[in-house]
Amino acid sequence: MPTKEEITEWFKSLQDSICTALEVEDGKGVFVEDNWVREEGGGGRTRIIQNGKVIEKGGVNFSAVYGDVPSFLQNDHGSEELKKHTFYATGVSIVIHPISPMVPIIHMNVRYFEMSNGVWWFGGGIDLTPHYVNDIDAHFFHAQLKKICDLYDIAYYPEYKKWADDYFFIPHRNETRGIGGIFFDRLNKKSKEELFSFVQGVGSAFAPTYVELLNRNKNKTYTEENKQWQLIRRGRYVEFNLVYDKGTKFGLETNGRIESILMSLPLNASWQYNHIPSSNSEEFRTLSLLKKGLNW
Amino acid sequence: MPTKEEITEWFKSLQDSICTALEVEDGKGVFVEDNWVREEGGGGRTRIIQNGKVIEKGGVNFSAVYGDVPSFLQNDHGSEELKKHTFYATGVSIVIHPISPMVPIIHMNVRYFEMSNGVWWFGGGIDLTPHYVNDIDAHFFHAQLKKICDLYDIAYYPEYKKWADDYFFIPHRNETRGIGGIFFDRLNKKSKEELFSFVQGVGSAFAPTYVELLNRNKNKTYTEENKQWQLIRRGRYVEFNLVYDKGTKFGLETNGRIESILMSLPLNASWQYNHIPSSNSEEFRTLSLLKKGLNW
Repeated sequence: MPTKEEITEWFKSLQDSICTALEVEDGKGVFVEDNWVREEGGGGRTRIIQNGKVIEKGGVNFSAVYGDVPSFLQNDHGSEELKKHTFYATGVSIVIHPISPMVPIIHMNVRYFEMSNGVWWFGGGIDLTPHYVNDIDAHFFHAQLKKICDLYDIAYYPEYKKWADDYFFIPHRNETRGIGGIFFDRLNKKSKEELFSFVQGVGSAFAPTYVELLNRNKNKTYTEENKQWQLIRRGRYVEFNLVYDKGTKFGLETNGRIESILMSLPLNASWQYNHIPSSNSEEFRTLSLLKKGLNW
Repeated sequence: MPTKEEITEWFKSLQDSICTALEVEDGKGVFVEDNWVREEGGGGRTRIIQNGKVIEKGGVNFSAVYGDVPSFLQNDHGSEELKKHTFYATGVSIVIHPISPMVPIIHMNVRYFEMSNGVWWFGGGIDLTPHYVNDIDAHFFHAQLKKICDLYDIAYYPEYKKWADDYFFIPHRNETRGIGGIFFDRLNKKSKEELFSFVQGVGSAFAPTYVELLNRNKNKTYTEENKQWQLIRRGRYVEFNLVYDKGTKFGLETNGRIESILMSLPLNASWQYNHIPSSNSEEFRTLSLLKKGLNW
């Protein structure tokens, strides 16, 4: 059975390999590392890339933290008994904002959690936020995720795809953040070996999938109008992350390292009052595709 | 005793007079009005100014809504009995984002709430968010607020100034949004006449105070570096409004008119990873003054 140390080491190696793959693909930007220590136990390696040739701003963050079980989990289980126990949480979190509006924003998180009472689980997800939805890319992206899922359980993809549609959703806009992907949490119904292997599969799929999407789109030309639209889409990304994202909320409420948490926000974003794209525009088409339940 | 109709009419006239004063001062921008209707009862007049000579984006919104008492208030009072009652809420909300980083952002809200069980209260506040803190302006701003408060009760200013320091605060940054101002809520310990008069005093102080600040600063020169700093400060403004502001949260959670609620967000904002101004810079000085309890 994989130990927390083995899982932790694997997440570190995943961070390394993803950073390398993204640097190679970008061709200019390099990740700068900030090591940080958590007062209550553990810490992390925040790695930020800024002003690359393709990537404008991105973070590939590893962390492993531990300590007393936080009160929000005690409440979750309605049990005072958890106060006696400690927790250990480790994972990798990624958000990449490209320069070009023709290149999609991507997010991934893979994580492992355990408590000293023996309870453990895995969680994670990947989702894609194109500024302009490209059907072929959307199909490719979802096909990659389905392929990984199907290796483990053909029930995974439909279930985790729906979970992503529901999670990466902005209720006050009644629109999804992007074209979704997969999302899963508190997986512990199969063996730890098998679930760790699945999470490794998801983590390992990130770099080749996103590098392919970068490759396909990074040299496309775009207009100032496309750039403006990108800024508006980024505004929605900010709205999702600050208002709804559980990882962000948890980080802000538990005195996490702010700059590591908010690396997910773009370099620039824009809010125009009541911006409505003209019908038949590409922007309008993209908006019409930001909904749950589409089969890519 | 002022009726809800009289209070509502006065808020409408306040919206009118503030819009006129800001248009005159700006010299180019004009407010565009969107009337909206709330399905459950009432509606509003959203007035937005964009691309003025001095004001980049701003909203001066009036609303008057009514209906069944919302569940969040029922919980607040821990009483099932409120379900039988209806509420009426009216007010004016303002946020102005200037083009120049030398001109401060301003926010004001004045509001009245009543329920059919006879419970009523006033609330409101004004706070100033300079991109660069100017001590003379900060003193002027607070002196104006103190002058209004002192006309009614010399206990108001210190109490409401502290309330503003506590409310307009970004815990995850450990900094105040700006230099504060005054904030008050659920005022009903004095007569309705007197409290309405106080709220009228606060509302009426807005235009002359902000016009004076616009006048003092609108023609100052600034650099690209100043502009970048403005974008970063605006990012913090977005963080406060989306993560902490009660009006915004309430609006998002109760299916309010999104574009009216989010008019408070700036046209553009920026997040740079771990941006730390160099010591002895004006930016550093401003950061050092974003804390509670300063006596302007």
